Amino acid sequence: MIRITVIGLGLIGTSLAMAIRGADAKDAPLGPTVITGYDKNPRATGDARGRLAIDREARSLEEALRDAQLVIVAVPVQRIRDVLSEIAPLLPSGAVVTDVASTKSQVLAWANELLPTTVDFVGGHPMAGKEQAGANAADPELFKGAIYCVTPSQRARQPAIDLVEAMVRQVKAKIYYIEPAEHDAYVAGISHLPFMLSTTLMSVVGRSSGWKEMSPLAATGFRDITRLASGDAEMHRDICLTNQAALVRWLNETAQLLLDLRDQIEDGASDELLAFFEEAHQLRDEWLLSRPNLRPGEDDFENVSGVGVARPSLFGRFGGKSTPTKKR
Amino acid sequence: MIRITVIGLGLIGTSLAMAIRGADAKDAPLGPTVITGYDKNPRATGDARGRLAIDREARSLEEALRDAQLVIVAVPVQRIRDVLSEIAPLLPSGAVVTDVASTKSQVLAWANELLPTTVDFVGGHPMAGKEQAGANAADPELFKGAIYCVTPSQRARQPAIDLVEAMVRQVKAKIYYIEPAEHDAYVAGISHLPFMLSTTLMSVVGRSSGWKEMSPLAATGFRDITRLASGDAEMHRDICLTNQAALVRWLNETAQLLLDLRDQIEDGASDELLAFFEEAHQLRDEWLLSRPNLRPGEDDFENVSGVGVARPSLFGRFGGKSTPTKKR
Repeated sequence: MIRITVIGLGLIGTSLAMAIRGADAKDAPLGPTVITGYDKNPRATGDARGRLAIDREARSLEEALRDAQLVIVAVPVQRIRDVLSEIAPLLPSGAVVTDVASTKSQVLAWANELLPTTVDFVGGHPMAGKEQAGANAADPELFKGAIYCVTPSQRARQPAIDLVEAMVRQVKAKIYYIEPAEHDAYVAGISHLPFMLSTTLMSVVGRSSGWKEMSPLAATGFRDITRLASGDAEMHRDICLTNQAALVRWLNETAQLLLDLRDQIEDGASDELLAFFEEAHQLRDEWLLSRPNLRPGEDDFENVSGVGVARPSLFGRFGGKSTPTKKR
Repeated sequence: MIRITVIGLGLIGTSLAMAIRGADAKDAPLGPTVITGYDKNPRATGDARGRLAIDREARSLEEALRDAQLVIVAVPVQRIRDVLSEIAPLLPSGAVVTDVASTKSQVLAWANELLPTTVDFVGGHPMAGKEQAGANAADPELFKGAIYCVTPSQRARQPAIDLVEAMVRQVKAKIYYIEPAEHDAYVAGISHLPFMLSTTLMSVVGRSSGWKEMSPLAATGFRDITRLASGDAEMHRDICLTNQAALVRWLNETAQLLLDLRDQIEDGASDELLAFFEEAHQLRDEWLLSRPNLRPGEDDFENVSGVGVARPSLFGRFGGKSTPTKKR
């Protein structure tokens, strides 16, 4: 019997609790669990209870952590520092602490600074989400087939890492061990930078004097590429503030490439423009051929090619229970 | 009986011919038609004939134009100049010439320079397309509900404009009269700039040293925002070369905004970042609420709001047969 405490019963915390509780006993690496839920907003705790996500409601952090073995901190990244310092004196010796934030270096630094050496911190980032928020939008299937990045702290012990890995497997996600700095740079490139570009496009065009006349001409291409601009503004603000270095680097490179493109257009550099567009097209084709890791139902382009492409190195770092590939 | 000649039997030329021929006699503003097809590649002409897109195949431009009343030039924009100079001496007096290119100022300038005063040029840009090319991908429904921009030349006579409007109505598109320079600036913002951003994102990330490790983490958000990068490289090269001024302006503004964003992230400017993201979110919400002009089947977000929103000024410039709103 493992006693789990979820702090923060929003979309991700509640979905994780539901997915852990809902696992078939025959396919539950964690074995039997008791889940205690805590949220500083009592209504969220009630909602999570209503979704049958938790076994017990705690009214205080003290009550929530009294006998916890695995603590899942599922609060927004900007709140994590405060929560870690609040729970630090309350954590039972030997407890394992994990989080679900979209950036990892900063969170690991806070954990190293604030948590006692009697507990182990193993960072996590389930790469799954929804546009809706809150316990009522929670979904036990949210993590099924999704990649779940795991970033153990330098001093985390193997049993702690194994426990978090068991949780990842129990919610049917695919574990992916990665260095915090690498995680942040990569996620900045494939997730945060796309959000910045989507938002910037919407702003540049939407603020322009011609927008009223222009907007009826905008159609599906514009809708799709601006979709990310409808994401959660606060969450992305927090991402910016906790993943500065990686984002600044990507934004510099992107702005420079756009200015190079501008110069080529001004110069009428026909061959260079064609080569640039063809290269991007090809990079995307190659990515699609590599059968990127989409969740079930998202793989609607898996059949663009009938070619079976081996994924030699790309998937080499996905963990396996018997051969953990933790990289430090 | 109107004699129509289509020059260039690719996706758009063939689809237009099919849509004109396929119209129900009761709903055919052009009345009975005879369509002659010409393509410098005889196989394309054969394919178009095979699709029943044309009534007659012409083996030369001379044959194609002998008795033409409406000439549709459906070749890539970079080919238009050559085609206009080739057809200029062959056009019967009184013929109406239109095109389908994605940029209009340059095409209008060529038409003014090259065509005799005995014919009328009325530019056109059907805002519809597909990723596939060629007559075999043609679809008579391609223009149904799509916006069809029309840019008459300064000296075009009203009957010529009416004829092109009748053709637009016959293919079930929505006519939208617009100045060539405005058209180019607007389309650059809502169509060409998104392509540039999608391509640039794919390049920046795909060229980076971490791409191999990063790519399995990329999922649907990345797929959607890079979708446009799989567009036709040659067509976009040509767009760059014929719509330089508008694109350069948009690229400058976009790069500047990305650098501002970079500065705000470096400075940890929490409030400014939040305001920027919220503004973009709101601009997009307002656009979605305005029920943008999507084609049937593309309106899957029409129901994001139950609110009925009037479209006062936005649609004021859509033409109506009885009240043409041509703006010059």
